Amino acid sequence: MARVNENFLKLRASYLFTEIAGRVREFQARNPEARIIRLGIGDVTRPLTPAVIRALHEAVDEMGRVETFRGYGPEPGYEFLTGLIAERDYGARGVRIAPDEIFVSDGAKSDTANIQEIFAPDSVVALTDPVYPVYVDANVMAGRSGGPDAEGRYAGFVYLPCTAANNFQPELPDRHVDLIYLCYPNNPTGAVMTREALRSWVDYARSAGAVLLYDAAYEAYIRDPAIPRSIYEIDGAREVAIEFKSFSKTAGFTGTRCAFTVVPKELEGRTAGGEPVSLNPLWLRRQSTKFNGAPYIVQKAAAAVYSEAGQREVRGLIDHYMENARIIREGLEAAGLTVYGGRNAPYIWVKTPPGVGSWDFFDKLLNEAHVVGTPGSGFGPSGEGYFRLTAFGQRSEAQEAVERIKTRVVF
Amino acid sequence: MARVNENFLKLRASYLFTEIAGRVREFQARNPEARIIRLGIGDVTRPLTPAVIRALHEAVDEMGRVETFRGYGPEPGYEFLTGLIAERDYGARGVRIAPDEIFVSDGAKSDTANIQEIFAPDSVVALTDPVYPVYVDANVMAGRSGGPDAEGRYAGFVYLPCTAANNFQPELPDRHVDLIYLCYPNNPTGAVMTREALRSWVDYARSAGAVLLYDAAYEAYIRDPAIPRSIYEIDGAREVAIEFKSFSKTAGFTGTRCAFTVVPKELEGRTAGGEPVSLNPLWLRRQSTKFNGAPYIVQKAAAAVYSEAGQREVRGLIDHYMENARIIREGLEAAGLTVYGGRNAPYIWVKTPPGVGSWDFFDKLLNEAHVVGTPGSGFGPSGEGYFRLTAFGQRSEAQEAVERIKTRVVF
Repeated sequence: MARVNENFLKLRASYLFTEIAGRVREFQARNPEARIIRLGIGDVTRPLTPAVIRALHEAVDEMGRVETFRGYGPEPGYEFLTGLIAERDYGARGVRIAPDEIFVSDGAKSDTANIQEIFAPDSVVALTDPVYPVYVDANVMAGRSGGPDAEGRYAGFVYLPCTAANNFQPELPDRHVDLIYLCYPNNPTGAVMTREALRSWVDYARSAGAVLLYDAAYEAYIRDPAIPRSIYEIDGAREVAIEFKSFSKTAGFTGTRCAFTVVPKELEGRTAGGEPVSLNPLWLRRQSTKFNGAPYIVQKAAAAVYSEAGQREVRGLIDHYMENARIIREGLEAAGLTVYGGRNAPYIWVKTPPGVGSWDFFDKLLNEAHVVGTPGSGFGPSGEGYFRLTAFGQRSEAQEAVERIKTRVVF
Repeated sequence: MARVNENFLKLRASYLFTEIAGRVREFQARNPEARIIRLGIGDVTRPLTPAVIRALHEAVDEMGRVETFRGYGPEPGYEFLTGLIAERDYGARGVRIAPDEIFVSDGAKSDTANIQEIFAPDSVVALTDPVYPVYVDANVMAGRSGGPDAEGRYAGFVYLPCTAANNFQPELPDRHVDLIYLCYPNNPTGAVMTREALRSWVDYARSAGAVLLYDAAYEAYIRDPAIPRSIYEIDGAREVAIEFKSFSKTAGFTGTRCAFTVVPKELEGRTAGGEPVSLNPLWLRRQSTKFNGAPYIVQKAAAAVYSEAGQREVRGLIDHYMENARIIREGLEAAGLTVYGGRNAPYIWVKTPPGVGSWDFFDKLLNEAHVVGTPGSGFGPSGEGYFRLTAFGQRSEAQEAVERIKTRVVF
């Protein structure tokens, strides 16, 4: 028999959302009448907007006529889309990003998982704790770690705790690291990073020779004009940072699949012998070999997000979810809980009451309010004692969830 | 600076289709009046069929209504599609494949490139020569080879030559290998594998402990009822084979992106310590971590291929391309050339005349007939002395290309 990649066997078997699904199923079986409200998984619920739907119909019709049919497109994306992204997401904000520094893909999950392939197998990886599990698992699979300890920390990774004690801002690593995953606005804590904090990371990466892998999938939720919406707003970031963005949470594309990754041409790695190597062509080669472009119709849909109507509608979507966030945040505060996030991010990060662990809190909310959230410990050991709720549900669900928590749960 | 994955630097810089594009551009600049016919890249030209277009419009409308909107789907694909595939592509042909052995994806290119990630980094890889370059490059990137020799063969890979001398049928490896890529109907040679030949590979893999990575992307082009359309038609294949299929060449999805991979539950690899490990859950974990499912609208479109209208229309598409194949094949034979393939495959594999190399033949056809094909040597050293034409063009192009070759080119 062929030998398997044994790094896969290091991965912790019980997956967070599988465990949640199991507990919810069991509860529902015992309480068939209960109407459960799910504010756990970060999936959107509002439909695609009219401008996007129109663009999809038009693109579908193009695919049905021989004169306008599209076969293989350019692997990094059509220029009609990369050009718009360069101009509207960057140029209009005073940031210089060229269309050929933008790689359109099927999702920020794929890109944040795949990006590590262009780096040396023994690169040292730094991760915030708590963290989006995909960054961790992709690097475990690639062999950059040992096995997990009892709390779920993999040997070899450098964990950067983010708790209320440090205002959910990771400290700079205390030893050499090569790759640093940062996600701001943060999933799961809902924290954002100020311009000064982001600058300290860029400066650190420049001096330490590290690459920042900056996941900005939630940047559209930033309300505070002082908070950077792209890492490239920081001088010098082009030489040290790769940025990931997505249409999933901005325009409701979680089931439609479109995102992009920016790899500036100045960004370099090096060989073991010290020769500099530009990362942009490496990622191009990776994508051209192991990916074949996002569907034409989906790229046309993404382009429609930049139309005047598209921009207005997308602002409406985000306003909708951010109003949910406000309702949840203020409701939980009124219930006496300490709440973080939810101001510049669609995630509300709740401090569980003293002596109540993340999973205890999960069970309590499920049993007493029939509300499902996500235990903070599922995102890493420093998430213990916290609980994530998301603002992506229907308005009536957000309202009712809060009402139930306020009236039925005793903390 | 972070260190890069130096395996990328082993890849040969000049990519086949880039070189072709350069020569064509140069020719067109010198001959602005020339109407060039492109029969080089294997991309379809017929539009999506009416049943698929209808399904896309319906699915788009679903995405525009809150009641029917779809966010994240199951990473391995919706059951409405995996169920259809299991029943129609397999069950109806007497082959037992369960829906949860089917993984829907965005393309066979992605899957055939990514599948190696679940195997040990030092697995020995066998490849036919000539071969689809993605299998090669993905394994070079993963570090399973040394650098290329002057002819482009990477050290460490086991190459299995396929030429007219062996009727384009690879011989069994003469040393131990772990992974064997086979593609039938073959790209680029257009050859098919008989039931007996396929059985010998399955038997070999069973006795040698190898895994067959069977790319059946072109199975819909098989006309001869004696040729297997799936490797699982061979007894025992469930224990040794992974199969890749695609809607790209069957239903014109090259720009719409949908494919699937079958990993039977009996299929096992092993740890270095000899423990058996089932590959189905490893691939599920890989896809769940580094991929987020194909778009809902695209999966609905793929499902429409299995409707009565869809099946009829898809047969029409394939008949169309296979008539092109006949025209090209017979035309080139009438021009005095020796021609292979094109009977159960959309690829026509032309023997270049004595003393005329693959690139010479490319230049000759471009200069004298203004027809673009692909030099066989671009697919591997054993492709030298051959030339690939594809049947995916418009009918009028196939006809005119043949006419020009017959009347303008002196071999």
